[in-house]
Amino acid sequence: MIIVLKQGTAQREIDSLTARITAMGDITVTPIIGTDLTILGLVGDTTRVDENQIESQHCVERIMHVAEPFKKANRMFHPVNTTVRVGGSVIGGEALTVIAGPCSVESEEQIVGIAKAVKAAGATLLRGGAFKPRTSPYSFQGLKYEGLELLQAARRETGLPVVSELMSPMDIDVFMDKVDVIQVGARNMQNFDLLRQLGRIDKPILLKRGLSATIEEWLMSAEYILSEGNPNVILCERGIRTFETYTRNTVDLGAIPAVKRLSHLPVLVDPSHGTGKAWMVEPMARAAIAIGADGIMVEVHNDPAHALCDGQQSIKPEVFSEVMKDLRAIAGVIGRSV
Amino acid sequence: MIIVLKQGTAQREIDSLTARITAMGDITVTPIIGTDLTILGLVGDTTRVDENQIESQHCVERIMHVAEPFKKANRMFHPVNTTVRVGGSVIGGEALTVIAGPCSVESEEQIVGIAKAVKAAGATLLRGGAFKPRTSPYSFQGLKYEGLELLQAARRETGLPVVSELMSPMDIDVFMDKVDVIQVGARNMQNFDLLRQLGRIDKPILLKRGLSATIEEWLMSAEYILSEGNPNVILCERGIRTFETYTRNTVDLGAIPAVKRLSHLPVLVDPSHGTGKAWMVEPMARAAIAIGADGIMVEVHNDPAHALCDGQQSIKPEVFSEVMKDLRAIAGVIGRSV
Amino acid sequence: MIIVLKQGTAQREIDSLTARITAMGDITVTPIIGTDLTILGLVGDTTRVDENQIESQHCVERIMHVAEPFKKANRMFHPVNTTVRVGGSVIGGEALTVIAGPCSVESEEQIVGIAKAVKAAGATLLRGGAFKPRTSPYSFQGLKYEGLELLQAARRETGLPVVSELMSPMDIDVFMDKVDVIQVGARNMQNFDLLRQLGRIDKPILLKRGLSATIEEWLMSAEYILSEGNPNVILCERGIRTFETYTRNTVDLGAIPAVKRLSHLPVLVDPSHGTGKAWMVEPMARAAIAIGADGIMVEVHNDPAHALCDGQQSIKPEVFSEVMKDLRAIAGVIGRSV
Amino acid sequence: MIIVLKQGTAQREIDSLTARITAMGDITVTPIIGTDLTILGLVGDTTRVDENQIESQHCVERIMHVAEPFKKANRMFHPVNTTVRVGGSVIGGEALTVIAGPCSVESEEQIVGIAKAVKAAGATLLRGGAFKPRTSPYSFQGLKYEGLELLQAARRETGLPVVSELMSPMDIDVFMDKVDVIQVGARNMQNFDLLRQLGRIDKPILLKRGLSATIEEWLMSAEYILSEGNPNVILCERGIRTFETYTRNTVDLGAIPAVKRLSHLPVLVDPSHGTGKAWMVEPMARAAIAIGADGIMVEVHNDPAHALCDGQQSIKPEVFSEVMKDLRAIAGVIGRSV
Repeated sequence: MIIVLKQGTAQREIDSLTARITAMGDITVTPIIGTDLTILGLVGDTTRVDENQIESQHCVERIMHVAEPFKKANRMFHPVNTTVRVGGSVIGGEALTVIAGPCSVESEEQIVGIAKAVKAAGATLLRGGAFKPRTSPYSFQGLKYEGLELLQAARRETGLPVVSELMSPMDIDVFMDKVDVIQVGARNMQNFDLLRQLGRIDKPILLKRGLSATIEEWLMSAEYILSEGNPNVILCERGIRTFETYTRNTVDLGAIPAVKRLSHLPVLVDPSHGTGKAWMVEPMARAAIAIGADGIMVEVHNDPAHALCDGQQSIKPEVFSEVMKDLRAIAGVIGRSV
Repeated sequence: MIIVLKQGTAQREIDSLTARITAMGDITVTPIIGTDLTILGLVGDTTRVDENQIESQHCVERIMHVAEPFKKANRMFHPVNTTVRVGGSVIGGEALTVIAGPCSVESEEQIVGIAKAVKAAGATLLRGGAFKPRTSPYSFQGLKYEGLELLQAARRETGLPVVSELMSPMDIDVFMDKVDVIQVGARNMQNFDLLRQLGRIDKPILLKRGLSATIEEWLMSAEYILSEGNPNVILCERGIRTFETYTRNTVDLGAIPAVKRLSHLPVLVDPSHGTGKAWMVEPMARAAIAIGADGIMVEVHNDPAHALCDGQQSIKPEVFSEVMKDLRAIAGVIGRSV
Repeated sequence: MIIVLKQGTAQREIDSLTARITAMGDITVTPIIGTDLTILGLVGDTTRVDENQIESQHCVERIMHVAEPFKKANRMFHPVNTTVRVGGSVIGGEALTVIAGPCSVESEEQIVGIAKAVKAAGATLLRGGAFKPRTSPYSFQGLKYEGLELLQAARRETGLPVVSELMSPMDIDVFMDKVDVIQVGARNMQNFDLLRQLGRIDKPILLKRGLSATIEEWLMSAEYILSEGNPNVILCERGIRTFETYTRNTVDLGAIPAVKRLSHLPVLVDPSHGTGKAWMVEPMARAAIAIGADGIMVEVHNDPAHALCDGQQSIKPEVFSEVMKDLRAIAGVIGRSV
Repeated sequence: MIIVLKQGTAQREIDSLTARITAMGDITVTPIIGTDLTILGLVGDTTRVDENQIESQHCVERIMHVAEPFKKANRMFHPVNTTVRVGGSVIGGEALTVIAGPCSVESEEQIVGIAKAVKAAGATLLRGGAFKPRTSPYSFQGLKYEGLELLQAARRETGLPVVSELMSPMDIDVFMDKVDVIQVGARNMQNFDLLRQLGRIDKPILLKRGLSATIEEWLMSAEYILSEGNPNVILCERGIRTFETYTRNTVDLGAIPAVKRLSHLPVLVDPSHGTGKAWMVEPMARAAIAIGADGIMVEVHNDPAHALCDGQQSIKPEVFSEVMKDLRAIAGVIGRSV
C-alpha cells in the first residue's frame, strides 16, 4: 500500500501516522521523500489496514493499492487451478464445461425436453431459472418452488446436474436440497449478506459478475464466500454495462485471461446474457473458448418465440448442436476438450 | 411500443404477430409500411406485452419503448408530488430534508454526540449504519443489532428520526421496530426479493440508486415497492460508476430534474458517497439544492480521522454547520426553506 | 423515425408538424393515437429530417430512430462484403489480414528487422507509427517525416505494404506518396474535417473506433469518408473506455458480429491497444478471429524493453510466430485462411 | 512514481532497472521489499521517465503514478488562479463569465438579434458556431467563413467578444482575425496536432472536455497548449459519456471542484450540451454556479423550433433572462458576482 501525503506535511505528522499504522499489525513503513511530495510505502500484512481510515487522516492526500485485496481467491497464494466437482463433472479442468438450458423453467415437458436435447448435444449441466430477477414487477417471475421440482424431474430423466438462481437467503435450505449448483445473479453480486451465508455451505456457487463490477470487486465477492469456508466458487462473466447500447451488455472477454492470472478459480462466459441476441451467441461462444474460458453457460429453448423469458437471446437445440461442434474444434486448437 | 420488423417480413407473419399481440390485452396495432422497413405501433395497455417474448419472434428485428414501463411511480398518472412523513418531518415538501450522521454507529457516546451536533445545526433526520455493506469481508461490518440499539438511544436523546440500512430480509421485523426510515443501499437496488418484501410494510424506504442503474431502472425498483402497496418511497442519488476515477463515483445531478419530471417521488442527493472526498461535500451539497433536490444525506463524524468507516468522506460538525448556512441561502433563491 | 408527442398535444399542432415534415421530402407520416400518448410514425426518406429541429418543436417529447442513419456504410443497401485491395493483399476477403509492426518507427535497422521478421511469420502488412498521438506533450512524438522514409525502406526490403497514422490534414499529400494505408486513430475518429478530406482521395483508410464511440457513431464516421467518394474504408476495433481499469481498454468483441450485420465494410481487431498488456495479446487475437474479425493489427517489437513507445503491449517476433500458428488453426475452424 | 515488480524478481534485475532509471535524470529510487512483492518508489523529475518503457521491462508487473503528469496546468506549481482577458471581460476572476448565443450562426438578422438580447440580459461573450462538427455528414455543417463574418457584424453591433469553434488547423489564421476566443470541441480534445498549433498563438482557447476524457487527460490536453507557450486556456465541462441515456450526456459537476483543486485554470460549464434538453438548462446552470464554476456557456436561440441545429437544447432569450436572475442570486450566496 502506498500513502501519498499532502504537500507540506510535518515530520511529526509522518511519525504519528507511521506509529499508528505499525500498531495495526506486522507492517513496515518506508518513507520516500521527494521535492514536492512525500509518500509512505507499506509492506507486510496490509489487509489489516483500513484504507478509509488512513485516507481520512488530515495529512493524507490519497492511497494506492499495490497488492490485491483478495487473499483466498488470489493465485499468488494458491498457484494451482481450483476445480469444482459437480456430479460426475469437473469444472475448471482440462475438459470444458457447458451449462445449457432455458432462461426459465416453464413446464415438465419443456424442461425435460430441453434437458434431453442439450445432453444429446454434449451439455454437461442443465440450467433453468425457477426464481427470476426481472427489472419489472409486472414481468413473469418464474415458477418458483414448482420450478425447482421440475428441474429435479429433468435431472432424474437425464442425469444432468442442475444450476438455478437463488434470490433470497430464506431459500438456501430448499436449494441445498434441490439443485447442484447455486447461481448468484449479477444483481446480487454484492449482496454481501447472501454471499456470507453461501460461504457457510459447501454447495458449488456460480457467481456472476455484476453489471458494473470491476474484476477486483468480483474477486472480492468470491472472497466473501471463500472466507467463510466454501471453496467451491465458479465465476461467470456475463457482460458489463457500458455506453454501447447495440448489445444488451458488453462482454468483457479480456476479463477471462485477467481472472486466470489473478485467481485460481474457474471462470465461464455467458454469451446469451452478455449479448442479448440469439444470432450473436455462436460467435461469442467461440471467442470465449478461444480466449481461455473454462466453459460457457448458454440459454437454449425449444421454442424461443413462445418462451416466457429471454426468448430473444435463446438458441434452439439444433443451433446449440452447431455451437458444440465449433467449441470442440476450438477446444482442440488450445489443447482442451469438450 | 414500437416493433421494428425484419426486412422482407411477409404479410401473413405481420397478421399472425398482430393477432398474438391483440390477444394479450386491450392493445391496438398500427402497421407503418416503408420501402425498406415495416414497423408496428402499439398503443393501449402495453404493460401486458412481454418485450422479450415479442423480440424473440423470428420476424422481429427489435423493440423500442415509447411509454415508460413504470406506472405507480409515474408522474403522468400521479401529477402531484408525493410527500413522506417521518416523525414530525415531511420529506418532499417545501422544506428541505437534511439527513446527517456517521457512516457507522460506533458507540453510544459517538452517535449521541453527533446526533446532538447535527440537530443543533439543523438536520432533520439522523443517519447511522448498523449493518455495513463492505467490499471486503475483512473490513469492519458494523455493530449490527447493537448499532440499532444505539440509534434508538440517540433518537431518545434528540428526537431525531433515524435512518439505517437493511441488508437482509430476515431483519425486517427488527428494523420495523428500531428505525424510522429503512435504507436500501446501492448494491441492493435490484435485490428484487428484498424490494418486494419492503413493499408489504408501510415504513418509509430510502432507495439509493445503484452504481450502474439507469434512471428508468431506479424507478422500476421503486415500482417494485409501490406495486406491493407501500407508497412511502424516497429516492437518493449517490453517484454512478463511470470511467472517471478521480472521484469515488460521478454524481449525476441531471438525474434530479429528470426524476422530478418522470416521477412524483421525493429525491435526495448524497454528496458524501457520491464524491468520496470530504472537501467536495460542501460544493456538491450546494449544487444538489440548486438543481432542485428535496434535500441531502450527508456523512458527519466528530472525529473522521478515527472513524471506523468512510472517514475520508465525512465532514466535521462545524463544517456541517457551514454547509447548512449555504443550503439555507440557496434554498431561499429557489423558493424553498430548510 | 418515431416522434413521441407531449401529452395533451392539440390536433392542430399535429397537423402543423405533419405538414412541416412532409414538406421536407418524400415522407409519409402515420399518427398513432393512444390514451396517454400520441406518436407519429415516419417512413420514406427520413435522412432529410433533422432530428434536432423536430425535437425542438414545442409539442415533441422525444424522437426515436428506426432506420440506421448511415446509408453508404449500410449492409441493407450494399449486401455484399466490401473488399479493399492493398498491394497484392485483399482485406475483407476469405483470407485474414495480419498487420504487424512496432508502435513507432525508431531506426532503419529496427523497422527493417521487424518487417522481415513479421513477414517471415506471415504478416500481410507492416504497421509503424511516424506521427504518434501521445497523451503527454513531453512523451516521444515519433520520428515524423523521417519515420515515413524508414517505412519506405522497409517496404522496399520486404514488399510489405505499410500502414501509418496521419494526424494532420496538412500531411495528406505526403502520406499519399509514402504509405499504402492511412490510419485514423481513435482520438481523431470524429475529427470530421480530417475524415472529409480523406474521403476525397482513394487511398485505403483504416478507421479506428473512438474510445467512447458507439457502433453507430463509428459507422457514421465511415460514412463521412464514403460519402465524399472514397470506398476503401477498413474498420478497426481497439477497445472502448469503461469503468474497468485492469486492462487499458475493454475490447468490445461483440462489435465484430454487430458491424458485420450492420455494414459491409471489413473490420479488424487490435489486441495490443485493446488490452495494453503483451501477455493478453495472444488469447485476444485468437478470440478476435474466432468471433469473425477479418484480421488483426498487432504491435511487434524486437526489443520491447527498449521500445520508445508501448513496449508493455508489444510482443516479440517469436511470440508473434506462435500467435500466427494459433490464428491459422482457428481460421481453419471457421472456414477462413491466413 | 511507483513500480511494482513481478514476484521473484532477482536482485540483479532490480539493480539493472534502478541504474537505467537513474540514468534518465535526477531521480532517486527507493526499493521497498515485502514478503510477496517488491516495489520501487521514484522521486525527482519523473516526467523524464517514459512509463510505457518501464512497464515493458520483463520484471515489471505494473506502474502507478503518484504525481500528476501535468506541470504548467498544475496548481501545485502555480497556486494563483489564472485569469484570461477577452475584450473588457476577465474570465476566471470574481465576476462570473456568461457566454451565450445560438448553436450555429444562421443569418445576420438572427445572430445580431440574439447578440442584442443576450447582452441585454447580461451575457459577457457571444457564442455562435460557424463550423459545426456533426455526427452525420448529411446534417447542416454551418455557414463556415460566412458565419465568421456574421459574428463580426454581431460584435460590431454589440461590443460582445465572440467565441467560435475551430475544426481545422488550416483555419487558424482566419480565426486569429475574426474571433476573440477559439473553441476546441469535445471531439477534438485529443487532436494533439491542433492543440500544439494553438499553443503557438496567444488567442484565448476554450478547451471543452472530451466525451470520455478523464480529468487528468483534459488537463494534459491543456498542457499541450500551455507547453507551447499560450497561457490563455479556459476549460469547459460539457458532460461525459456514461451508460445513462435519458440525458444526452452526464454532466460531471464534481469535475469543477476537482479541476479547481488540481489546476489554476478557469473552468466553465455548458448546461446545454451537457443535458441536451432545454428544460434542464436552468437548473443545471444554477448548480454549475453553486458548485463553483467560473461561469457558463449556454445556447440561446430566438426561435428554437426553427433552429438549424440543437434547437431541442436551446432556450429562448426570455428564459435566458430568468437564468441570469438565478445566477445573480446564487453568485451572491457564494461571494461572486455576475
